[in-house]
Amino acid sequence: MTAVKYELIKTCKQSGARLGKLHTPHGVIETPIFMPVGTLATVKTMSPEELKEMGSQIILSNTYHLWLRPGHDIVKEAGGLHKFMNWDRPILTDSGGFQVFSLSDLRKITEEGVHFRNHLSGEKLFLSPEGAMDIQNALGSDIMMAFDECPPYPAEYDYMKSSVERTSRWAERCLEAHQRPEDQALFGIVQGGEYEELRKQSARDLVSLDFPGYAVGGLSVGEPKDVMNRVLDFTTPHLPENKPRYLMGVGSPDSLIDGAIRGIDMFDCVLPTRIARNGTCMTSNGRLVVRNAKFARDFAPLDENCDCHVCKTYSRAYIRHLVKANETFGFRLTTYHNLYFLLKLMEQVRQAIREDRLLDFKEEFFEQYGFNKPNAKNF
Amino acid sequence: MTAVKYELIKTCKQSGARLGKLHTPHGVIETPIFMPVGTLATVKTMSPEELKEMGSQIILSNTYHLWLRPGHDIVKEAGGLHKFMNWDRPILTDSGGFQVFSLSDLRKITEEGVHFRNHLSGEKLFLSPEGAMDIQNALGSDIMMAFDECPPYPAEYDYMKSSVERTSRWAERCLEAHQRPEDQALFGIVQGGEYEELRKQSARDLVSLDFPGYAVGGLSVGEPKDVMNRVLDFTTPHLPENKPRYLMGVGSPDSLIDGAIRGIDMFDCVLPTRIARNGTCMTSNGRLVVRNAKFARDFAPLDENCDCHVCKTYSRAYIRHLVKANETFGFRLTTYHNLYFLLKLMEQVRQAIREDRLLDFKEEFFEQYGFNKPNAKNF
Repeated sequence: MTAVKYELIKTCKQSGARLGKLHTPHGVIETPIFMPVGTLATVKTMSPEELKEMGSQIILSNTYHLWLRPGHDIVKEAGGLHKFMNWDRPILTDSGGFQVFSLSDLRKITEEGVHFRNHLSGEKLFLSPEGAMDIQNALGSDIMMAFDECPPYPAEYDYMKSSVERTSRWAERCLEAHQRPEDQALFGIVQGGEYEELRKQSARDLVSLDFPGYAVGGLSVGEPKDVMNRVLDFTTPHLPENKPRYLMGVGSPDSLIDGAIRGIDMFDCVLPTRIARNGTCMTSNGRLVVRNAKFARDFAPLDENCDCHVCKTYSRAYIRHLVKANETFGFRLTTYHNLYFLLKLMEQVRQAIREDRLLDFKEEFFEQYGFNKPNAKNF
Repeated sequence: MTAVKYELIKTCKQSGARLGKLHTPHGVIETPIFMPVGTLATVKTMSPEELKEMGSQIILSNTYHLWLRPGHDIVKEAGGLHKFMNWDRPILTDSGGFQVFSLSDLRKITEEGVHFRNHLSGEKLFLSPEGAMDIQNALGSDIMMAFDECPPYPAEYDYMKSSVERTSRWAERCLEAHQRPEDQALFGIVQGGEYEELRKQSARDLVSLDFPGYAVGGLSVGEPKDVMNRVLDFTTPHLPENKPRYLMGVGSPDSLIDGAIRGIDMFDCVLPTRIARNGTCMTSNGRLVVRNAKFARDFAPLDENCDCHVCKTYSRAYIRHLVKANETFGFRLTTYHNLYFLLKLMEQVRQAIREDRLLDFKEEFFEQYGFNKPNAKNF
């Protein structure tokens, strides 16, 4: 008995991408899917109602951040993360591993776990596979992630090999420490950097532990996009067909399509929400920096091909005014639009899989977006 | 023909407060009413949909701020302020006078108008009665305010007398410069500080010009509350019964009730939205500073007697967490609640007038709120 179950609906005859359904304790998700990130039990600037209105099926929240603030004990006392933040659809929590490696200072990795300093207070802390399970069990997410080591890019082969082996041992300890497997599904994370042999080894180790889902970790950490695609090309074939596959930390429009083509079912990234708070928008014609002076008297919507509430209601001139004046409502509007844009993109990807034409869709999308132009600005 | 018309429904037999309706080009407002402040064409952190949901009947926007950013020409080009910001209910704009006196540096008052420096860029600017009309005509608000001088408290009698006389001359110039009297109603502003004779003189001057509405200005500028009440006591009797009366810049719960008792129909203030962004909430049991540590594990709503969306859905513990982490959504929740609290209070005030028991209501409200306690914390 496992908390989530993946149902493969069909495979795109043109691209090999997968259309599926993920059944969770808080409802069914259509895949491939993008998951908005709600780090501190809130998707920055958005309300749960808005997230639903724009079509968010599942959100991600960060174990490391909630452990520090407000503390997982408080979230548990509130009745779990869903109740605490008023979100009744599925939630995935990461393990805290990535943040421990990317945000903290003075970390020391031992077999037992990681010693580090809190990025807010400087306080000494320790996180282990058992600790990460304990916190996520308290949060009550539908999908939990195993505690892994996420080495930076590039890393030496020898270091990566010992890291992958430790991550596999930690994955086993996570499975053992997990207290609520019937309510919460625990996914393993395949590491191995750009090394085919290590990715294969990592996948084999984790698949032998029979997790209900697998993530591909350690990508989107600074490597070129063709490296990411190559790693996916040689990694996903080692993952079982009947389990969901989650590419962690990826959210640029081109990478979502490229990931789906390589058999990925789930994605998350702070990109759409982070750039929104800087006044940068994703549109069907490419990147639009709405704070630019040229939009001061532009009364067109952010994206003329978008049917989101923001594009149907507000002008670039108004949004530029708000963003320039640092008005919260401006960041609400850009955030809403960007998230809608990616959620809608994934809906188009699913439709293209249904119609066995995802490679054609990619070509059309890249052409309109401008990815094919020399010097095209990506994210 | 005037753009707005006040209809007196009834007078409270117990208190003398007025229940009325104000007919405007964008709909009918029930009075007495509180107007949320949307300085820069946005009520900070809120959407128009949320403002409607909580029962906002009219909002105020600031002429001075919109003149500087984005510029009234851009708002006009967008089709006016209502369309620019997607608000189809009434809007009142102030004249910019108060901001010129409170925000700017190096101001120099002449008969012609006021020379000052822009509080953002330091640029030299000039605002006159004609300029204030021109800007407000471009914005297209339902109710415009005359350009007045708002002297600080306390001011010498002689200074105040010459200021009142200039404000009356400016009021006449405003009437003359106003280009759209059929679409936009222009209200006069009674000044005179704490001096009964000057308030009477100011009211008589302005009433002789037959404005469609009158404001009482120059209050809530640092004077004690009993001074404000005393000024209202001797000012409102000089205002015509068939025109609306607006007390500018007042929004603490006790002053709203005390103002209504003295015949005031309209109020505005940044108080509820400003304190919300500091994590301070208005509740039926008094002031609640939700960021305080004692609310960390308090899963009750902000106000147990409140039926707003926030109080029905979120806990103090969640809101405290968001506010402490500086999360926008936290400030959305406190802002929504505070505005709802004042709008609901005015609904209760209107009901008490209907039932000829506003003095009783005041007593009950003050008792529960804690205003009657020694050292009660007000705003």
